[in-house]
Amino acid sequence: MTETARREGRVTLVGAGPGDAGLLTVRGLRALESADVIVADRLGARGVLDGLAAEGIELRAEVIDVGKTPGHHPIPQEAISELLVEIALSGRDVVRLKGGDPFVFGRGGEELFRCREAGLHVEVVPGVTSASAVPAIASIPLTHRGLATSFTVVSGHDQIDEVGGGRDHTVVLLMGVGTLPHSAHVLGAGRRGGDCPVAIVEDGYGPRQRVTFGTLQTIAHQAAQRKVRNPAVVVIGDVVTLSPYAPSELVDAVRRDSERKAAL
Amino acid sequence: MTETARREGRVTLVGAGPGDAGLLTVRGLRALESADVIVADRLGARGVLDGLAAEGIELRAEVIDVGKTPGHHPIPQEAISELLVEIALSGRDVVRLKGGDPFVFGRGGEELFRCREAGLHVEVVPGVTSASAVPAIASIPLTHRGLATSFTVVSGHDQIDEVGGGRDHTVVLLMGVGTLPHSAHVLGAGRRGGDCPVAIVEDGYGPRQRVTFGTLQTIAHQAAQRKVRNPAVVVIGDVVTLSPYAPSELVDAVRRDSERKAAL
Ligand SMILES: C[S@@+](CC[C@H](N)C(=O)[O-])C[C@H]1O[C@@H](n2cnc3c(N)ncnc32)[C@H](O)[C@@H]1O
Ligand SMILES: C[S@@+](CC[C@H](N)C(=O)[O-])C[C@H]1O[C@@H](n2cnc3c(N)ncnc32)[C@H](O)[C@@H]1O
Repeated sequence: MTETARREGRVTLVGAGPGDAGLLTVRGLRALESADVIVADRLGARGVLDGLAAEGIELRAEVIDVGKTPGHHPIPQEAISELLVEIALSGRDVVRLKGGDPFVFGRGGEELFRCREAGLHVEVVPGVTSASAVPAIASIPLTHRGLATSFTVVSGHDQIDEVGGGRDHTVVLLMGVGTLPHSAHVLGAGRRGGDCPVAIVEDGYGPRQRVTFGTLQTIAHQAAQRKVRNPAVVVIGDVVTLSPYAPSELVDAVRRDSERKAAL
Repeated sequence: MTETARREGRVTLVGAGPGDAGLLTVRGLRALESADVIVADRLGARGVLDGLAAEGIELRAEVIDVGKTPGHHPIPQEAISELLVEIALSGRDVVRLKGGDPFVFGRGGEELFRCREAGLHVEVVPGVTSASAVPAIASIPLTHRGLATSFTVVSGHDQIDEVGGGRDHTVVLLMGVGTLPHSAHVLGAGRRGGDCPVAIVEDGYGPRQRVTFGTLQTIAHQAAQRKVRNPAVVVIGDVVTLSPYAPSELVDAVRRDSERKAAL
């Protein structure tokens, strides 16, 4: 085999984290620095590229934006996968920069398998997922001794009626703002009850970052009033009361409840 | 207030990721570089510190190891929190380096609240959690179009009987090796069924990294035979069949099952 016979570019799927350049991994940064082309999502990825530029880190790569922008249709997933294959086959090293972790609601698997099908070498660099990092902004851990020992991550449009557990099983909704009234209703009608605490963190690490608190009963109303928008992470469960920003009614209600249980 | 009156050190809770120095975040690395003292877990954290040293990155900080080492008792959680407070009150900047993400089964919340109680300023730097990054080693995404649209992360000893959903709801077990026979039995008796695919990834990114496949029915036996040990991440659900290393019987069984469903 001659040198030129095998000169496809490398494909690297990089998790950008939730949008703060400091939450990119060291390996992810190196991949960006050595890439010829970067194919970037709007969410997370855009924030990271802007953040790097603001810190004076110049990337030599061409950046192709495949994210949804307001008023524009998103590029279909299949077209993105084909684009990656095309770039790599043309001999250039391409980084696919995806918000959060590529394997958590990122459709990274589809891109990975399409590229492998095309015979390309693909590396995956995991990232910090918004599911844990965005609640962390409000100091809300997903698990906490005595309050939660498991959690479920679910997208707004799916399987909400199959989520098990009670208020000690944290629920994290991604892409969940549009369907919040339905999700909150379903979860509130179950073991969690209508007074289960909820927090919504919008645009984590971004300019519109904001936290909204409520209960499963009140949150849809609160969200509508405050015009809460995607991207946002919704956290549901008793861990929400650990936030120093949680309103005292919420904290007191949970405390009363656990005192009642302890007294039984 | 005079300058000297307020000279406590800063506390930074840093997620080290699953143990590979390249999966540390950029901000995490900077915190380590500027720290006076690093209080490190064995898991994840140790791997990262060794990896940095191997790359020639020298840290000036004193490193205190509070991780469990074989044959030694772990330092109690309360003592670790007190140690952080003590160091910071003595005026030194301390990084608490925790495996994975500090808020995913990391007891980071407890350390955060104890330090805040002591009036200290605490910053949290989220990390890459092993829950998603360790399955990624075997190319297993936690969600995948058509195979899974939600996932639950649960520790081996808790709440396994409350996990909802079927094989299209991925389950990730952390600290799950010891209780695997019980967990597999409970989940197999439910909607997932005994032939639901399972993968165990041991010591991800470490020298003992190894993947073991099976079904809910067979995995406990396989794990015993291969002497599977912690640390390990167990992934349960149809997404497991996406791994290029998955044995063909496993993949075929899932394919037959979905063809049968499509034909109904
Ligand atoms: C298609 S999913 C991708 C998730 C991503 N792969 C991850 O691991 O974070 C996009 C959703 O993630 C959440 N999200 C991602 N980044 C966010 C941020 N910076 N602030 C709030 N929500 C965010 C929102 O729920 C958004 O609708
Ligand atoms: C106390 S939990 C801490 C989890 C951590 N905070 C995180 O987000 O990954 C420790 C468990 O994480 C899993 N784990 C962490 N790092 C791992 C690795 N490198 N390989 C396999 N499992 C790992 C194992 O299940 C282990 O028992």
